[in-house]
Amino acid sequence: MKKAIDNFFNPKSVAVIGASRNPQKIGYIVFRNFLDAGFKGRIYPVNPNAEEILGHKTYPSVLDIKDQIDLAVIAVPAPIAVQALEECGKKGIKAVTILSGGFKEVGEKALEDRVTEIAKKYGVGVVGPNCLGIFDPSTGVDMIFLPRYRLERPKQGNIAFITQSGAIGSVVLDWMARKGYKISKFVSYGNAADVDEADLIEYLGKDRKTKVICAYFEGLREAKKFMEVTKKISGKKPVIVLKGGKTEAGRQAISSHTGSMAGSYEVYKAAFKQAGVLHATDLEEIFSFARTLSTMPIPHGNRVQIITDGGGFGVLLSDGVIENGLTLSKMDDKIIGELRKSMPTYVVLKNPMDLTGDTNMERYRLAIDAAMQDPNVDIIGLIALLQVPRLEADIIEVITNVFKSSKKPIFVIAAGGEYTEVLKKALEDFGVPTFSYPEDAAKCMRILYEFGLDAKKIKKGNK
Amino acid sequence: MKKAIDNFFNPKSVAVIGASRNPQKIGYIVFRNFLDAGFKGRIYPVNPNAEEILGHKTYPSVLDIKDQIDLAVIAVPAPIAVQALEECGKKGIKAVTILSGGFKEVGEKALEDRVTEIAKKYGVGVVGPNCLGIFDPSTGVDMIFLPRYRLERPKQGNIAFITQSGAIGSVVLDWMARKGYKISKFVSYGNAADVDEADLIEYLGKDRKTKVICAYFEGLREAKKFMEVTKKISGKKPVIVLKGGKTEAGRQAISSHTGSMAGSYEVYKAAFKQAGVLHATDLEEIFSFARTLSTMPIPHGNRVQIITDGGGFGVLLSDGVIENGLTLSKMDDKIIGELRKSMPTYVVLKNPMDLTGDTNMERYRLAIDAAMQDPNVDIIGLIALLQVPRLEADIIEVITNVFKSSKKPIFVIAAGGEYTEVLKKALEDFGVPTFSYPEDAAKCMRILYEFGLDAKKIKKGNK
Repeated sequence: MKKAIDNFFNPKSVAVIGASRNPQKIGYIVFRNFLDAGFKGRIYPVNPNAEEILGHKTYPSVLDIKDQIDLAVIAVPAPIAVQALEECGKKGIKAVTILSGGFKEVGEKALEDRVTEIAKKYGVGVVGPNCLGIFDPSTGVDMIFLPRYRLERPKQGNIAFITQSGAIGSVVLDWMARKGYKISKFVSYGNAADVDEADLIEYLGKDRKTKVICAYFEGLREAKKFMEVTKKISGKKPVIVLKGGKTEAGRQAISSHTGSMAGSYEVYKAAFKQAGVLHATDLEEIFSFARTLSTMPIPHGNRVQIITDGGGFGVLLSDGVIENGLTLSKMDDKIIGELRKSMPTYVVLKNPMDLTGDTNMERYRLAIDAAMQDPNVDIIGLIALLQVPRLEADIIEVITNVFKSSKKPIFVIAAGGEYTEVLKKALEDFGVPTFSYPEDAAKCMRILYEFGLDAKKIKKGNK
Repeated sequence: MKKAIDNFFNPKSVAVIGASRNPQKIGYIVFRNFLDAGFKGRIYPVNPNAEEILGHKTYPSVLDIKDQIDLAVIAVPAPIAVQALEECGKKGIKAVTILSGGFKEVGEKALEDRVTEIAKKYGVGVVGPNCLGIFDPSTGVDMIFLPRYRLERPKQGNIAFITQSGAIGSVVLDWMARKGYKISKFVSYGNAADVDEADLIEYLGKDRKTKVICAYFEGLREAKKFMEVTKKISGKKPVIVLKGGKTEAGRQAISSHTGSMAGSYEVYKAAFKQAGVLHATDLEEIFSFARTLSTMPIPHGNRVQIITDGGGFGVLLSDGVIENGLTLSKMDDKIIGELRKSMPTYVVLKNPMDLTGDTNMERYRLAIDAAMQDPNVDIIGLIALLQVPRLEADIIEVITNVFKSSKKPIFVIAAGGEYTEVLKKALEDFGVPTFSYPEDAAKCMRILYEFGLDAKKIKKGNK
């Protein structure tokens, strides 16, 4: 692993090359971001045509800065960017991000090759070109050159996201912020002229702030290196990938987009499986999977107990469980016998366990407790349709408490309008992920179980 | 078709059997609903143990009411419900809904058979038992016995929803209200002792207020009748179904839920296809499909032009288009040549057409116009990532205007945080459906195209 990668996230000093006084310019937005995001280190604007920017003295070149620089951000047009990179090399800067486009993606392969050469020659780690760069909420590194009022930043958390596509990266950040999903580190690495997905995943594998690694890419720079790195990490930390360019049409779109060569999807899928990489098939899945893996314990097996207050939702979740290769648990007769004593006769104590539409909080409490203590149950699918008249808001506290203390994963499914959404938001704020669709929850159960198998925390076929 | 079905939605007079003064009771909530929902007809509470309810004189039995009664709602326990139904028959009431449970679903088959017998004997149409009943926002019929603060009601529109499961029905209503999807008629028909899914679909097929018919069911009461009815309708009006109990486990869940016999999913799928019924595989799809079919014109073919400002999203939509059996259009050289003159050189005028991240509203306007006039384009996939710095809010007006006047379907895809959501909400309020995930939009393109084929508005293999 390149040691310099840590410099991208934890620099003590940063130079912004192309820092500008014009608020329309990327160089202005990036420089300003560092100030606004509360970056604790020293920051130097580099611009030969200005004396000072936002109260900071500017330098004509990084070579004119006396201080050691840990990280440089380059936001000047492509040919000048290459020259600036060379100066960074001479200055001994170990980490450089080139945000500028105008390289391989528009056919300027020679210019991009120069970036790779210079990176090698000076031992500089280069992220980019043609990217959004890096965002790390814990250190205040924020190169995202889209204004915060248009693109929100998520709070500090344990999900890392790396992406080849800047567009997808920007949507992901904005989306995570809105949904309240929290991020450890974000990298939009663009053309990957030097630092690539494997380098970043290797680093994130060791990063203690990161619990789940997510990646979107269209092509791999070095498939072999990617396989080696992910094989080592995937058993310890979940690595979830979404691959763009599954079809020939998608691959043609890629070639006019990033200029990557994208191989056959079947080959990728086989490789992911071999490396223990978890595979999302669309954007919606990658979010659901990341959230599940970042908040839930690994189950001991694949036996799901469904508890519901609505029959139809229980049916849909049963279908989902089976379609995702899991099984429905058969609870212990003694435990069910005990439960029977405290439930009305019309409550169905099978799987799904149907507490029916006149349920109250107490029935849920008893049912969850029973499933918790039953060794035949590995995963709990908890459907709580909150519209029913006797279920009061204290159900939120019951669910939160059991979720926090539980060693079994609990998938809470609730769906509806404003009243339901307010209660779901309360659960989310307490750190309990909620699902709207039974089918989505079932997929996430599967991915959690798959990760457990990869991590060898579940022995195959245990019962 | 049973003529009486219209009575369920357009009654001039309603009797609520079991109307109560106790706000906890279903009979109270239903009676109150009719008053609150602005029901224009006459309404009679029936309860032998009360003099008046909410200012309305009560009657011991429907037989004591002098007026003709078009519709009765029964909300008393099962054995008494059967007796009340017999009285309704004697009174000559042509439409009765039995909300009460306690029939086939709990093993009381004999009681349910009585309902069927009485319905036949008197020629009464019976919806239920064990259901939520009917909601029609245009007439103020509202039997949903869940309080409005917990379960919102959607506004009047053109999507009809019928459901065997009350739980799914309640979530659907609540959800539609929150998302702003509008409903024509809603029926939760429960055990279908008399009126079944086929009767309802046949009625909705002729209902001028209904443009799209959605149905959730677990088993069919009479498969042959369902096939005959849907075959006749599906070419004119989309019929979308979601079938619960796709797996053996799901079917077992059903047998302890509604007591229906659910046949093999493969058989159902083949039947749906034969009848031209559109098939949703999960709850999320049924919503997306209904919204698409209720708002968009039928395309003339399956050739999709993608316009985007973010490469990665274009790649994902390309994949989605192909995976859903559609194709990417090849635009006319002359039209592209004209467009070229007004675009910067780095704009990619292929498919996807990538306007790039520095796009403004004008580029979108030109690109959309070109795709509109090009006869090689049947469907437009319009990705507008609104975070990009030069795209101002006036893009909303451009999209709305073109959507309203267009004879080609336009699928607008935008995703992000608060800023983006506010703009998307504006589009939705103007009647333009928006999508967050490219994959979801691609599925909806497919279903629209499929409906066009079924409706023979598209000749197979046209180009």
